[in-house]
Amino acid sequence: MADLKVLGISGSLRKASYNTAILKVCAELMPAGMTMTYARIDDLPLFNQDVFDAGLPEPAKRFRAEVTAADGVLIASPEYNFSLSAALKNAIDWGSRPPNQSWQDKPVAIFSASGGPMGGARVQYDLRRILGQLWAHVLPRPEVFVGSVASKVDPQGRVTDEATRKFLTDLLVGFKVWIERMQVKK
Amino acid sequence: MADLKVLGISGSLRKASYNTAILKVCAELMPAGMTMTYARIDDLPLFNQDVFDAGLPEPAKRFRAEVTAADGVLIASPEYNFSLSAALKNAIDWGSRPPNQSWQDKPVAIFSASGGPMGGARVQYDLRRILGQLWAHVLPRPEVFVGSVASKVDPQGRVTDEATRKFLTDLLVGFKVWIERMQVKK
Amino acid sequence: MADLKVLGISGSLRKASYNTAILKVCAELMPAGMTMTYARIDDLPLFNQDVFDAGLPEPAKRFRAEVTAADGVLIASPEYNFSLSAALKNAIDWGSRPPNQSWQDKPVAIFSASGGPMGGARVQYDLRRILGQLWAHVLPRPEVFVGSVASKVDPQGRVTDEATRKFLTDLLVGFKVWIERMQVKK
Amino acid sequence: MADLKVLGISGSLRKASYNTAILKVCAELMPAGMTMTYARIDDLPLFNQDVFDAGLPEPAKRFRAEVTAADGVLIASPEYNFSLSAALKNAIDWGSRPPNQSWQDKPVAIFSASGGPMGGARVQYDLRRILGQLWAHVLPRPEVFVGSVASKVDPQGRVTDEATRKFLTDLLVGFKVWIERMQVKK
Repeated sequence: MADLKVLGISGSLRKASYNTAILKVCAELMPAGMTMTYARIDDLPLFNQDVFDAGLPEPAKRFRAEVTAADGVLIASPEYNFSLSAALKNAIDWGSRPPNQSWQDKPVAIFSASGGPMGGARVQYDLRRILGQLWAHVLPRPEVFVGSVASKVDPQGRVTDEATRKFLTDLLVGFKVWIERMQVKK
Repeated sequence: MADLKVLGISGSLRKASYNTAILKVCAELMPAGMTMTYARIDDLPLFNQDVFDAGLPEPAKRFRAEVTAADGVLIASPEYNFSLSAALKNAIDWGSRPPNQSWQDKPVAIFSASGGPMGGARVQYDLRRILGQLWAHVLPRPEVFVGSVASKVDPQGRVTDEATRKFLTDLLVGFKVWIERMQVKK
Repeated sequence: MADLKVLGISGSLRKASYNTAILKVCAELMPAGMTMTYARIDDLPLFNQDVFDAGLPEPAKRFRAEVTAADGVLIASPEYNFSLSAALKNAIDWGSRPPNQSWQDKPVAIFSASGGPMGGARVQYDLRRILGQLWAHVLPRPEVFVGSVASKVDPQGRVTDEATRKFLTDLLVGFKVWIERMQVKK
Repeated sequence: MADLKVLGISGSLRKASYNTAILKVCAELMPAGMTMTYARIDDLPLFNQDVFDAGLPEPAKRFRAEVTAADGVLIASPEYNFSLSAALKNAIDWGSRPPNQSWQDKPVAIFSASGGPMGGARVQYDLRRILGQLWAHVLPRPEVFVGSVASKVDPQGRVTDEATRKFLTDLLVGFKVWIERMQVKK
């Protein structure tokens, strides 16, 4: 049986982003039978329906194809001002329009990391609502919030906090079961 | 007494955007003693803290100065996938960072227009939460949702629906009182 | 194959509640292979963990057993002050606690009716978040908001508006497919 | 100048509730010029518009009068299943209906405590939306979430954690300024 293909998306564009670093570490923590590739979202223009209608820009074409091809999508979401980063909302919107809305029936897992103690406790519910109503299937639990992230990831981007590694591993194990369950029988 | 200066922001980048059209009409519907200018947000790059730290791009400088200088901000918000457009979230985020977070103590009024029957009933609460926690003061009511907007605005961008004109007028009258009440005494 | 058993819950305690009336009409609109019974929630005491721990009150026992036994739950939710009625939140909370949290893996469909034009556009997302995080599976679409309900339901509780009957029928047809898909294989 | 009268409301009905305990401690931490009394909400029946219309039950009359008379309301909110306790939503609803909606223009401050690490990070935004749209004025910051509360409050209900005492003190100092600012001039 072929590996499940997971597409990783980080909502932060910072070079030294903790969310991006942790997303990379997830590739190591995944159970056997899953592999991850990464989407680029920084070159998507600000969504504008006029542009969409005039012909999809190349980065949007690429992004939509990647989401469509994936068996599941893993999103690392920072929290900017109590909600999604513009970069992440932008990517979701580019992926969302007909004729082939790429989020339809897509299994998704999310986590968030932030410097503050809460780890993104607010953004995740906006993200769940947005993706859920696009008929993606967002894994309900475990909810993974990596707060005070600077103390848990070292400057080389390694997750040094054992509890965090455990939460992420649980998330990925749960995600594998979720993908298999949610896949539409063909 | 000098006029209250209102900054108008449309969250849609579409040329023929209904939200932008209605925002323009608001300039005519305003009570005496308020004037409106418009912010541009389509040239703001996707927010990236690295860029912010390296020195504000010119469009971000301009936008922050405009928000700071305004007595109040009027936002026309489309609803994309159950929440804010990326363009609007992006503008809010560029305006939000210290040292001089430009939303602090800013009176704000919002409305939303959309093609569907609901008129943006979901986006407004995300917007209220985001701006409220940035310590802007968002006028609670009237809540103005312009649903089925294509039947209420003509191709020249005129608001032809009398009920909608009335809702907008009530919003603007209430906004004037709100600005005066919320202004910090100096 | 046995009929799917649906438990209907109305979040309104009003005798002449539109939500309750429409919920009753849903029994007629259901596709073949589904039958509905109704839960009573007005006799549940205000949730108090002390009471829960001291031994479940009879109404709570009954309610939990009904949710657990159902193949799916159909919720008619009024919107009180931008969120759930206390009566509905109370019922959800009584159903939620371990050892046998009754919402786990339960397919749920929701609709809302209200006198105003929006039909409950705000309550549904709170309800989706609450039930989704309890690992119930809430049907994402169609989203059914019955606004201006007094013009669509007659004094005998009949749904006289054809468009509303159609929305409800679509919801119920979709719900049947959803229940079958979401049922855990045993 | 007379003391500002604050009405304290705890959303938990548990006898040994941490939220109630901390609310009591707030009376000691308040700045000079504020005094607190406490509302009872456990004897309010589940809200039902039929009952409201037939004549307010005594507990509802009492509660509405208390909110109306207060200069500000301080709410200690537990988080039950990602949102408000039914008891708290119920109290808000009883206080909300015309002719004399008691939340109108009322300054409110909120905090939440919970056993988990997050301290109620989800409930506060529902609470802010509900009260804000009722035209109460909810203090935006500091946001006070008391997580892992069992380690911060002793069995006698004393707040033993210094950081928590500091957060609560900041909240109360900020609340006094907020009440004075938000009071409608007469």
